Amino acid sequence: MADSPNCDLESLSPLQLFERVTEQGEKVRALKAGKAPKDEIDAAVRMLLSLKLSYKTTTGQDYQAGLPPKDLVLINNGTAKEEDEDLVDPWNVQTSNAKGVDYDKLIVRFGSSKIDTDLINRIERATGQKPHHFLRRGIFFSHRDMDQILDAYENKKSFYLYTGRGPSSQAMHVGHLIPFLFTKWLQEVFDVPLVIQLTDDEKYLWKDMTTEKAYEYAKENAKDIIACGFDINKTFIFSDLDYLGASTGFYKNIVKVQKHVTFNQVKGIFGFTDSDCIGKISFPAIQAAPSFSSSFPQIFNGKDNIQCLIPCAIDQDPYFRMTRDVAPRIGQPKPALLHSVFFPALQGAQTKMSASDPNSSIFLTDTPKQIKTKINKHAFSGGRDTIEEHRKYGGNCDVDVSFMYLTFFLEDDDRLEQLKQAYTSGELLTGELKKVLIETMQPLVAAHQERRKQVTDEIVKQFMTPRKLAFEF
Amino acid sequence: MADSPNCDLESLSPLQLFERVTEQGEKVRALKAGKAPKDEIDAAVRMLLSLKLSYKTTTGQDYQAGLPPKDLVLINNGTAKEEDEDLVDPWNVQTSNAKGVDYDKLIVRFGSSKIDTDLINRIERATGQKPHHFLRRGIFFSHRDMDQILDAYENKKSFYLYTGRGPSSQAMHVGHLIPFLFTKWLQEVFDVPLVIQLTDDEKYLWKDMTTEKAYEYAKENAKDIIACGFDINKTFIFSDLDYLGASTGFYKNIVKVQKHVTFNQVKGIFGFTDSDCIGKISFPAIQAAPSFSSSFPQIFNGKDNIQCLIPCAIDQDPYFRMTRDVAPRIGQPKPALLHSVFFPALQGAQTKMSASDPNSSIFLTDTPKQIKTKINKHAFSGGRDTIEEHRKYGGNCDVDVSFMYLTFFLEDDDRLEQLKQAYTSGELLTGELKKVLIETMQPLVAAHQERRKQVTDEIVKQFMTPRKLAFEF
Repeated sequence: MADSPNCDLESLSPLQLFERVTEQGEKVRALKAGKAPKDEIDAAVRMLLSLKLSYKTTTGQDYQAGLPPKDLVLINNGTAKEEDEDLVDPWNVQTSNAKGVDYDKLIVRFGSSKIDTDLINRIERATGQKPHHFLRRGIFFSHRDMDQILDAYENKKSFYLYTGRGPSSQAMHVGHLIPFLFTKWLQEVFDVPLVIQLTDDEKYLWKDMTTEKAYEYAKENAKDIIACGFDINKTFIFSDLDYLGASTGFYKNIVKVQKHVTFNQVKGIFGFTDSDCIGKISFPAIQAAPSFSSSFPQIFNGKDNIQCLIPCAIDQDPYFRMTRDVAPRIGQPKPALLHSVFFPALQGAQTKMSASDPNSSIFLTDTPKQIKTKINKHAFSGGRDTIEEHRKYGGNCDVDVSFMYLTFFLEDDDRLEQLKQAYTSGELLTGELKKVLIETMQPLVAAHQERRKQVTDEIVKQFMTPRKLAFEF
Repeated sequence: MADSPNCDLESLSPLQLFERVTEQGEKVRALKAGKAPKDEIDAAVRMLLSLKLSYKTTTGQDYQAGLPPKDLVLINNGTAKEEDEDLVDPWNVQTSNAKGVDYDKLIVRFGSSKIDTDLINRIERATGQKPHHFLRRGIFFSHRDMDQILDAYENKKSFYLYTGRGPSSQAMHVGHLIPFLFTKWLQEVFDVPLVIQLTDDEKYLWKDMTTEKAYEYAKENAKDIIACGFDINKTFIFSDLDYLGASTGFYKNIVKVQKHVTFNQVKGIFGFTDSDCIGKISFPAIQAAPSFSSSFPQIFNGKDNIQCLIPCAIDQDPYFRMTRDVAPRIGQPKPALLHSVFFPALQGAQTKMSASDPNSSIFLTDTPKQIKTKINKHAFSGGRDTIEEHRKYGGNCDVDVSFMYLTFFLEDDDRLEQLKQAYTSGELLTGELKKVLIETMQPLVAAHQERRKQVTDEIVKQFMTPRKLAFEF
């Protein structure tokens, strides 16, 4: 149906319209190049102009070749990404800058909004709580429609939280905790229910792994997530392999999303190719569907219009740009988003930590000794080459990984500021800064391990059982 | 992973290997055309020869451009289909021949086997029952691995039946009954369990229809299917929209199939394009998964190696060629198949009946009067233009739709033979033959309507409830 240029253009999403204009432009070029009859070329040009007009009416922007609509900018293909831009998608984060990804540029490229002081103050007013240091320090730095969440919340209209994880190996590292720690805080201050998706099906599709192994990792990872302190009465954790076969609503939403997204679109958004398996190609719908409350009839009593808020690292945004594009076309509210920066690898902020390289990360299973050794040996230093130079010129907090980690895990603002000044002035040496980090991380990881020990298989089972939560909607 | 030509070729299916050889051939041509350096061309040629060798080792056939491996011949694209060949795929059946599709050619093209007298005799011996007239008259004319089903059955190893229907509208026509009538007979003579898939998700994806409407059609169609007389203790009917969210095994098999089929493959098999939605692209896995017993843990007690036999019209074969290609790679037995010819439209055997054209079909809801009018008015006649000519030269049963319908629905072999001879000789006139058909169809449809009335919503619910069936595996 979508093949005919005469079909109802108003039903097309901005991205679909963009693609239609692009296709028609190519057609016109091909006709001209092939010296087609004049009336044929003229008809194709008229269609092109009419498509461009529809595009402008729908998006409020002029069509520009290679520049897709703002809310759905392609991030994975050469036309949209400039030479020196950072590569950010669900499978890759790469930058040539030691300070890490340029997040201000990313906000422009992704078409999201910056979390500014006004928004942080509004969150403080709405919740009556001091904003989390992840907000105060720009670790959660970008959003989509958080203002609408607050508008509704102030009018006593509640929402739910959705976040997730791809369970690729048994051991999680401290970077994996960032979205969960922040989500836990959001759940507490807003007092809302939370669903956590473990995409074991994704891991099965992408990795050399059986479904059984992927599901086992999901359950193991659930223990680390539960150990963050989520309230069992307000939190539902699910494995896709498990819950898809246990929900009357989840698959229906998946197939609805799948009907409204073409291969062309996922090719543009995620960079899939014709050689990719059909499981990967259709997977984005499975990550999209929990954004709709009807995927959880047991929680929301069958209500399908509860607003969703998704805290996640910015690399997951492509899934939810797609979701937001589809939502109105299947009669669902668009999910709102809060985006975090990436947690840097010990070796430097050019890449995010990876569970597959044990030295790139502090794992939640590491002993105090391992933590000490890793930080001392691998944490990239912003200090100078000699003590003399360091004392004279000072260290560089912008590229020092130990300092970056402290911004994530040292809650005391004054102490962090003191450390920054002392390191920048050269008063504090790299070894001393590392010592502060070691002393911060060791008890934090040990406490996590202690809490994780308390998480029995029975508790995991309870969290992962579809059930009513302690909310009325 | 599949991108590197150095990956393990042995893990590739024949079709994947075929595609790799084709791709590599194109690469060599492109290099030569682009006057690439000699060593680069040489390396590409060496890789091509090595791929061709792997192909030969795996398939036992020499690679031939445009001619995919026998078991997975592409039916939908220009390279495999000759000018004057019939078009047969899950959405189209078209032939220029008034006798209908050339089924002998189709067997060669699809790489299936003819159901010959030997096989029919074997079925008679194995079951101790006179073979169904659909077998005796070549209505079920082609198979895959039916001999293996019989080998196992004779060694007391049982199997299960799987068939299905896409519920596109409330009213079914008599042609829709063919696979069900035959499946019912198979179930009775072999005494085996049966699963019937209603692909309401497929209809939602392909048509302008809500999920609710598609599910409603599924339940309505289930009534007509149940009215064929299936044993409630041995039959499970399921809607995808419903059962996918109620089975611990179904989705796992779907995602396994989806991991082992690429977009390139479904493009070749089903003719999908980049503009198709990702739901269509991944759907073939949903029709594949019921071929594996682990999709029905409640029936097979979790056993995942029970052999499946699929009776279906030959247009559904592409799904199961794909399924058979994937099965060994996910550790499952290949399903066996029994293929039927198409049920002709009243207007002639060039196309199959369509539920969307009320005059192309006798519907299960038609009154005796409607049946009479439709047959008299629309049934394509193989008779002569005048009574005189007819008496002199006789009618042509090969193109006469009334006679064709009688081969489907008149069980009495002797009577059918008499009619054939009388019509061919000119003794019987078209109007008289039509009268026989009317008198055959009217009570048949009326009896169906009577049985359908007995099928309450409660009975439908029972058939559609996942449960243990009256078999031990």
